[in-house]
Amino acid sequence: MGIFAILIFLFLGSVEGFSTKSQPCHYSKDRMCKPALANAIFSTVAFVLGAVTSLVSGFLGMKIATYANARTTLEARKGVGKAFIIAFRSGAVMGFLLAASGLVVLYIAINLFGIYYGDDWEGLFESITGYGLGGSSMALFGRVGGGIYTKAADVGADLVGKVERNIPEDDRRNPAVIADNVGDNVGDIAGMGSDLFGSYAESSCAALVVASISSFGINHEFTPMLYPLLISSIGIIACLITTLFATDFLEIKAVDEIEPALKKQLIISTIVMTVGIALVSWLGLPYTFTIFNFGAQKTVYSCPVQDVADSCRTGAATNVIFGLALGYKSVIIPIFAIAFSIFLSFSLAAMYGVAVAALGMLSTIATGLAIDAYGPISDNAGGIAEMAGMSHRIRERTDALDAAGNTTAAIGKGFAIGSAALVSLALFGAFVSRAAISTVDVLTPKVFIGLIVGAMLPYWFSAMIMKSVGSAALKMVEEVRRQFNTIPGLMEGTTKPDYATCVKISTDASIKEMIPPGALVMLTPLIVGIFGVETLSGLLAGALVSGVQVGTFFFMAILSSIYFLPCCIDNHTASIQIAISASNTGGAWDNAKKYIEAGASEHARTLGPKGSDCHKAAVIGDTIGDPLKDTSGPSLNILIKLMAVESLVFAPFFATHGGILFKWF
Amino acid sequence: MGIFAILIFLFLGSVEGFSTKSQPCHYSKDRMCKPALANAIFSTVAFVLGAVTSLVSGFLGMKIATYANARTTLEARKGVGKAFIIAFRSGAVMGFLLAASGLVVLYIAINLFGIYYGDDWEGLFESITGYGLGGSSMALFGRVGGGIYTKAADVGADLVGKVERNIPEDDRRNPAVIADNVGDNVGDIAGMGSDLFGSYAESSCAALVVASISSFGINHEFTPMLYPLLISSIGIIACLITTLFATDFLEIKAVDEIEPALKKQLIISTIVMTVGIALVSWLGLPYTFTIFNFGAQKTVYSCPVQDVADSCRTGAATNVIFGLALGYKSVIIPIFAIAFSIFLSFSLAAMYGVAVAALGMLSTIATGLAIDAYGPISDNAGGIAEMAGMSHRIRERTDALDAAGNTTAAIGKGFAIGSAALVSLALFGAFVSRAAISTVDVLTPKVFIGLIVGAMLPYWFSAMIMKSVGSAALKMVEEVRRQFNTIPGLMEGTTKPDYATCVKISTDASIKEMIPPGALVMLTPLIVGIFGVETLSGLLAGALVSGVQVGTFFFMAILSSIYFLPCCIDNHTASIQIAISASNTGGAWDNAKKYIEAGASEHARTLGPKGSDCHKAAVIGDTIGDPLKDTSGPSLNILIKLMAVESLVFAPFFATHGGILFKWF
Repeated sequence: MGIFAILIFLFLGSVEGFSTKSQPCHYSKDRMCKPALANAIFSTVAFVLGAVTSLVSGFLGMKIATYANARTTLEARKGVGKAFIIAFRSGAVMGFLLAASGLVVLYIAINLFGIYYGDDWEGLFESITGYGLGGSSMALFGRVGGGIYTKAADVGADLVGKVERNIPEDDRRNPAVIADNVGDNVGDIAGMGSDLFGSYAESSCAALVVASISSFGINHEFTPMLYPLLISSIGIIACLITTLFATDFLEIKAVDEIEPALKKQLIISTIVMTVGIALVSWLGLPYTFTIFNFGAQKTVYSCPVQDVADSCRTGAATNVIFGLALGYKSVIIPIFAIAFSIFLSFSLAAMYGVAVAALGMLSTIATGLAIDAYGPISDNAGGIAEMAGMSHRIRERTDALDAAGNTTAAIGKGFAIGSAALVSLALFGAFVSRAAISTVDVLTPKVFIGLIVGAMLPYWFSAMIMKSVGSAALKMVEEVRRQFNTIPGLMEGTTKPDYATCVKISTDASIKEMIPPGALVMLTPLIVGIFGVETLSGLLAGALVSGVQVGTFFFMAILSSIYFLPCCIDNHTASIQIAISASNTGGAWDNAKKYIEAGASEHARTLGPKGSDCHKAAVIGDTIGDPLKDTSGPSLNILIKLMAVESLVFAPFFATHGGILFKWF
Repeated sequence: MGIFAILIFLFLGSVEGFSTKSQPCHYSKDRMCKPALANAIFSTVAFVLGAVTSLVSGFLGMKIATYANARTTLEARKGVGKAFIIAFRSGAVMGFLLAASGLVVLYIAINLFGIYYGDDWEGLFESITGYGLGGSSMALFGRVGGGIYTKAADVGADLVGKVERNIPEDDRRNPAVIADNVGDNVGDIAGMGSDLFGSYAESSCAALVVASISSFGINHEFTPMLYPLLISSIGIIACLITTLFATDFLEIKAVDEIEPALKKQLIISTIVMTVGIALVSWLGLPYTFTIFNFGAQKTVYSCPVQDVADSCRTGAATNVIFGLALGYKSVIIPIFAIAFSIFLSFSLAAMYGVAVAALGMLSTIATGLAIDAYGPISDNAGGIAEMAGMSHRIRERTDALDAAGNTTAAIGKGFAIGSAALVSLALFGAFVSRAAISTVDVLTPKVFIGLIVGAMLPYWFSAMIMKSVGSAALKMVEEVRRQFNTIPGLMEGTTKPDYATCVKISTDASIKEMIPPGALVMLTPLIVGIFGVETLSGLLAGALVSGVQVGTFFFMAILSSIYFLPCCIDNHTASIQIAISASNTGGAWDNAKKYIEAGASEHARTLGPKGSDCHKAAVIGDTIGDPLKDTSGPSLNILIKLMAVESLVFAPFFATHGGILFKWF
């Protein structure tokens, strides 16, 4: 964070050679704006603010989750409904905390920066973009580091414990069990929290930058200017109302009511939010205003208020389609949903429409996060029940809570990927505008090579992460095996294993291994930007379209269809058929494992009980699929967003000093 | 073929309402060109010609290969050198056959069509593009159908035979053994042959179309106009010289000389070809000429002959880099190689440079095909040795021939993918020019949605193919198992299995299952084109950049790193390490299996002998990886090329009737 803050200051300060004189504005040449040095300082401050807010959010989220775990276990003694309420409320605390702190810090920063900037809104909102970069860059490390942490622990615990030693999940004799439980918090709570916080900060910044060069930005109408923040504010209220439906208005009595209750949250929040958006748009936006299109040619776009509200609603509705479709038709339906919402929102209000559509997707972030955080809380509650030797019935209840969370986790990924696509496009548009590129023509070679290299980045990045998880998992497997072999009485339960060494392996691996993929993402826009802004534009477009695909498909269809195959094909041919239908219905490897474990149908029983060869293979497959699904996949969202927001922050530098490297060649 | 020929005629004929009157030319409005109806008729004829040539090439290739198999086995009795010469010469026969027939048919068609067209070269070369479409569309079915055929048989034979029954590969007791051997010819010989023929036809057509609107096209200079064909002609001579190095000038004495000899072929042919290209460029091209840039604004591009020759050489050299790099650093180096050659060739001679760079990559097609065809010939020679019960030493020799072919097969894939990227870009450029789009701006929503949907197509297409292979393999496994269980004396070798049923399963599956993915590729450009040419442009760009990645990476890095993991992790932790290093060195699953089988090192021996759990898992993994590597992967080249050439052929129709669907919405 420190190094990158210095880089931001140096790069942006150098645009006008660290001069302290005011300069003509970038968009309205007849007016004077603050010097580039001021933008450098305020961008750096905004970056640090965003980064710190993101870190604090992740930290507090983990605190809340660890408090909530044990309480959920205790409540599970009273029944599944009580346990659900505790787990969901704890998740909601984290959701509201993140949504509110992100909004408050951003609002305060805008007002404080405004004291210096006065009526130079162009400079003000350009600096504020640093906030999005800060939030997103910490999210990258949260996701990648957290992902490596949790998967290293998970693989180590499962492979040796479940496959080799045949002891149950979360058994306290397993040395990696604590690391595994900690990992759920690190990866899913801190990682997901900082990811969605990053998306939220970026989409707000993208909308603000686009708005700052619209007619209300130039005419200094403060209320419509803060329309993006108003949407987020009303979103918090809408989510508050929605939460009551899960915890107060409706009561969970049986296990099979949990999943519908979670899905209902998504739908209710969207309906309530639609009313909220209409209200905010009616109060906050002027009846007509003008959005300038991008590049050298500024065409005037007449845009009534209704259109912006529609874009925003499109986003929220797409969210539901995307989240639900992700589980069913892997990549095809989600991509069409994204394509449709981009086309519609752009048609209605140009790039501002795309930006507010992204905000629309994220306006119910509090509910989304509540659902997401609920999953690992229930998972760990089960772990605590097992380790504390509580009765089998309690474990069954927490398992049911967890299973419902697994399905809705796909919806959380839908949030993350879908909004990432829209946010990146809006940021990309803002970047192109700021870098003064008139068109991003695929048929020019500079753009095309950027496009093809950009499309390659998600693969390179994923390969790096998979390698890191693999080598960390290897260390963990060896340590767990060593402890089982050398500590006498461990299998009999008379001696305690050395949990701390396993926690240390995960911690060290995640901190060390997140550097190379992080550097790839952080440095690529800087290096390519110095090549030239055209190539950087191509790169962003390539990474965007390719990253969205890899992020969804990779982890749904291919995984489910392929990983199930090697498992049981030699024993149970019919499993190929499950695999084929699973690839259609989006049921992944994880569900295949659960299917065998549950033994619900005649067919599932022929695949064998727990401990059979087929079940072992399913556990192994789950182990392999998990890093793709939980580590590489979600990190790709951040890759595409982060490169776009970074390009936007550094756009003044590239516009001044770009193209140097091409001239050398 | 019939249905699509009718579609071409109807769509293109409708451009001017089937009028028989001459029309003003598209590029030079002051001159009169032949009516659209004539173009429709000649495009249809060219399409049929291309399709038939492709089919005949595939058929003859399979004939040659099946004659060559047994001869190679017999020669293997005399020594590995003799066997190598027979296998390589047979491959070369097929290579020269394809290269020569493609060239002759194209040359005759141009001359015959020229009798009608006279000096309307615009119409003439627009119609000739149908030849590329015909070749490529048959290639799609050859690749997809052939891939499904061979993998269904392979999976069935290996899983039941090697894993369940523990009998050797190619054992004649295995009912699927004949289907497996036939499959090698169908998939690798016919599929690869028609694929490279398609690439060759398309790159020639792309270069011709671009040339026809250059200064020598407009000034009717026939020799430079046919420069693309001259390159191919000199390529045949260069390959002929190169072949002598493998079979006459240098002699193979030991097993370890085979692989270097094959790699030398690639390098020698590139060196000889460089001289040839210089010669042809010096004789065939005028000293300066003008290439018009694309779209509404035609900027004049001064281009000395040296530049075009350089582009062409860039292509040939990229070929070597690409082919060799593919095996080592999976997707990263190949993508940079493609990006570099696109940038350089475009800088030198605009889109014509890209087209001739593609031709440069394909100019040594005869040698490339010889190396490719050599592989399945040696493979089947081994199968025949095993089935005929010949001595173990003969089997060892043919295995060595086969192993050398496996490594160079990666180079063949390098040819196919690398050239596909360049060919598609050139065709894409020609399409944009013909459809009168001035720029393909990523930031317009119509283009962007095309981009994102286009990038999704390779995944959709791969998922379809994987499903087809899976269900066909399932049928095969069941049939092989049924025969082993119900035919008495089969395992003892006293009764013959029912080979014909297995062949029929593969045949039926491939013919039936190639329809849906084929329809996806063939219909998408038509449907999207009716939406509008901007969206279609985005779609082509998206499919191109995404398809190249998926086509390389998918099948190298991910496969090798992931598939090895599930196999032995519970038995042999160290295998994770192999997997990680394998993903770096490009060694795939197949090599992991060979590694274990060979037992060359201390470590390999700990992973167990043939028949161990670990080896079984490796066989299963190989089985799963193969369809990705051999069926989906290579088909993706065709996906990106075919959609581009199809768009070019239908460009006049889209330019007239496009955008209808967007107007409706």
